Amino acid sequence: MLFSQETIVALATPPGQGAIGIIRLSGNDALSIAQKIFQGKDLKSQPSHTTHFGKIVDGSQVIDEVLITIFRAPKSYTGEDTIEISCHGSSYILQQVLNLCTQQGALLAKPGEFTQRAFLNGKMDLAQAESVADVIASQTASAHQAAMYGLRGGFSHDLQEIREELIKFSALIELELDFSEEDVEFADRTKFFELIEGAKAKIQALIDSFKFGNVIKNGIKVAIVGRPNAGKSTLLNALLNDERAIVSDIAGTTRDTIEETLNINGIIFRLIDTAGIRSHSTDAIENIGIARSKKAIEAADIVIVLVALENTNNEKNKHSILEDSPNPYYTIRFALMDAEDIFEQTNKAILVVNKEDMLHDFDRQMIAHKFPNAQYLSAKNSIGISELKQLLYNRAMSDVHATEGAIVTNARHQAALKETLQALLDIETGMNNHLSGDLLALDIRRCLHFLGTITGQVTTEDKLDYIFSKFCIGK
Amino acid sequence: MLFSQETIVALATPPGQGAIGIIRLSGNDALSIAQKIFQGKDLKSQPSHTTHFGKIVDGSQVIDEVLITIFRAPKSYTGEDTIEISCHGSSYILQQVLNLCTQQGALLAKPGEFTQRAFLNGKMDLAQAESVADVIASQTASAHQAAMYGLRGGFSHDLQEIREELIKFSALIELELDFSEEDVEFADRTKFFELIEGAKAKIQALIDSFKFGNVIKNGIKVAIVGRPNAGKSTLLNALLNDERAIVSDIAGTTRDTIEETLNINGIIFRLIDTAGIRSHSTDAIENIGIARSKKAIEAADIVIVLVALENTNNEKNKHSILEDSPNPYYTIRFALMDAEDIFEQTNKAILVVNKEDMLHDFDRQMIAHKFPNAQYLSAKNSIGISELKQLLYNRAMSDVHATEGAIVTNARHQAALKETLQALLDIETGMNNHLSGDLLALDIRRCLHFLGTITGQVTTEDKLDYIFSKFCIGK
Repeated sequence: MLFSQETIVALATPPGQGAIGIIRLSGNDALSIAQKIFQGKDLKSQPSHTTHFGKIVDGSQVIDEVLITIFRAPKSYTGEDTIEISCHGSSYILQQVLNLCTQQGALLAKPGEFTQRAFLNGKMDLAQAESVADVIASQTASAHQAAMYGLRGGFSHDLQEIREELIKFSALIELELDFSEEDVEFADRTKFFELIEGAKAKIQALIDSFKFGNVIKNGIKVAIVGRPNAGKSTLLNALLNDERAIVSDIAGTTRDTIEETLNINGIIFRLIDTAGIRSHSTDAIENIGIARSKKAIEAADIVIVLVALENTNNEKNKHSILEDSPNPYYTIRFALMDAEDIFEQTNKAILVVNKEDMLHDFDRQMIAHKFPNAQYLSAKNSIGISELKQLLYNRAMSDVHATEGAIVTNARHQAALKETLQALLDIETGMNNHLSGDLLALDIRRCLHFLGTITGQVTTEDKLDYIFSKFCIGK
Repeated sequence: MLFSQETIVALATPPGQGAIGIIRLSGNDALSIAQKIFQGKDLKSQPSHTTHFGKIVDGSQVIDEVLITIFRAPKSYTGEDTIEISCHGSSYILQQVLNLCTQQGALLAKPGEFTQRAFLNGKMDLAQAESVADVIASQTASAHQAAMYGLRGGFSHDLQEIREELIKFSALIELELDFSEEDVEFADRTKFFELIEGAKAKIQALIDSFKFGNVIKNGIKVAIVGRPNAGKSTLLNALLNDERAIVSDIAGTTRDTIEETLNINGIIFRLIDTAGIRSHSTDAIENIGIARSKKAIEAADIVIVLVALENTNNEKNKHSILEDSPNPYYTIRFALMDAEDIFEQTNKAILVVNKEDMLHDFDRQMIAHKFPNAQYLSAKNSIGISELKQLLYNRAMSDVHATEGAIVTNARHQAALKETLQALLDIETGMNNHLSGDLLALDIRRCLHFLGTITGQVTTEDKLDYIFSKFCIGK
């Protein structure tokens, strides 16, 4: 038996205050546990998919007035008897109801345990189950569509087609083995070559979709670096201007992230505002932020290096005033030196020149000489912001193929697909070398194994626990 | 017509990611709006209190696979046709489903609008409706019990009893008026005196319960003030030690508060750690925190003034070393001077001496001389912490009567009860002065009016909007 038959319980709605909070019970004893704490009706005599008003009680004390919905096995999310208790959305009440359920014998569900049971009970395959978490986490239309395609079994179906053809051919090969002394070929080798070619192309397309899948699932990390006076916060605000409202339309969407997120054409950009760097400062103390910025640069997919003219009209910078500049007290020289350092470190950087209205030709020439692809803007006046967004989008999509249909967003699937592809190549090589049927059959089985790990036809308990541990509690 | 017949829609579960998120529709068009975006079943032909699996679609695009539960008027929370759409708990999906509902003609619900409709449709009275918000906000057993008593109509019932007796008597008085020329008394004045006395006692008890009600609903604000070295953070941690886990058992319970909360015997204490004060410092810069601390002191119900021996062994404090002290480099003198200042400002302060293990008799004598009621403890060694908790609890409950049954937690109710009591006193005075029946009847009506404002038998639209605006969206 792969899993326990214990009845599990968890909070199914997000934590916090709301009109409604739902406690979900699943397992053989879900109804009897609910009945022990519920007053109002005999739940056991009620049909599936019906909702009943009553009270949750702890002895003589009324904990809440609730609605209980009954889902009878196998017509439930998990495939088991399931009870949903719709309470007032008070943390205190929900905690009390959870406590009552556990006192009556329910176990607190592990993360993803409801979905894991749905998988183990055959309500969905593993790839679909994994899509559940992706559906919940999706923040954009593209991420949501890819996840829904997976949840509804589209991805599994694509794989299943390949799998079935391989199984058919494998059966013929194995049939040949029974007649091996007669040297017949039931399996048409030419057709099989075509089949392998087709499968390879499909698997390769899925593998290629992962870059896009990763972008739409995880977004693009953008570090904004620059000296303290470059206007990083102003740029951040200008970029977020309208978008902030959209991303946070339902409060709490970005609760767990420290970065700001920006949606450009359906792709999430995670903007990380770094501490100001000033590596070419004459003031040693100001070098402190560098280590932190370097880390952000390493982690980023794109680095915006923001530069601007800076005022050097103070005592300690007196010696640096450029006599030949038309802005004797302003220079972009130090900022460009910093920028050159960053461009040496990484090829992910783009140079953005802020406060472009302050530039003289002299400055522009200096910039153009070193950074011919620099983007000019004024964050304060919202000039050049939409151009920068387009540039960010183009950068993000530069080596990515936006595809319809199945998009691989899951690193586990990606790894299994690569192994499947390698197995297909091995089959092809084997056929080219007129490998004997029994060895060919082994290669095909290996290929089927890797495909099967994606949909869960082949799996181990450890692997399952790991996959579902990444879910939220209550799902 | 007091309210619009438009169909309203809102997110009913807390914002954020979770297994389940619920969108609720209420109004005449709830079923038809839901049907337009739902594929799977003909909802209109389904009975009330049943749940149906299907897809939410936007044209050809599947937004989510959902469960829809139907509640037909009047058997719903609002008394109107109501639809609950149980989606995957993704902010993106929930936003899309909300958008689809509004595109089909639903209006986004205002805060509390569902409960307001429940009240207007006679599903609950106003005091019960107000309890809904209290039930959701309750964090402790006592707050929860008081709110549930109100939600279940206990408080309304108590008032209703008084109200009915007054109405009965009022009817008799008004009957007398019809026979006024005959100078009869249908209404037994002696019995009425008893009735008024009884009502006064009940109303007074409710008014008295408000202090307790306020404590259990809003908790007790405790400011911790003291000089920077007094160990405020250590004390805070020692106080929160086990409790923090309980308060945050469901993550997010304290999300909206900046203070830490501590549950002592069912009462919530809101601990506010202030910036260190050091008003008797020789260093002028350190005086900055004072204004902030003063504000915290004013807002607090209890002020913990934390003092401890402090090291004066540095250049600028050299002159302050007390030659006669057994701790020549340590003194509590400045801390006590600060404490005296605070005790002059407020009578809410309690003096707590930290690091009690470091004290010499000399220090103890100095403290005892000025603060005979000082509490000694060692936050670091967790000595004296439970005693401090007991002291805080005793302070909080010192002029509060913990009562069973109806507890007034609502300032609006408290104000109406005070006016009711005044009207009862006026009736009594009138009867003592042998006021004529018609004038007495007016006083009784005034009394009934104030009682009626609590349960909503007397109300105005403005008042209702104000009351329900304090609810969360979706309730």
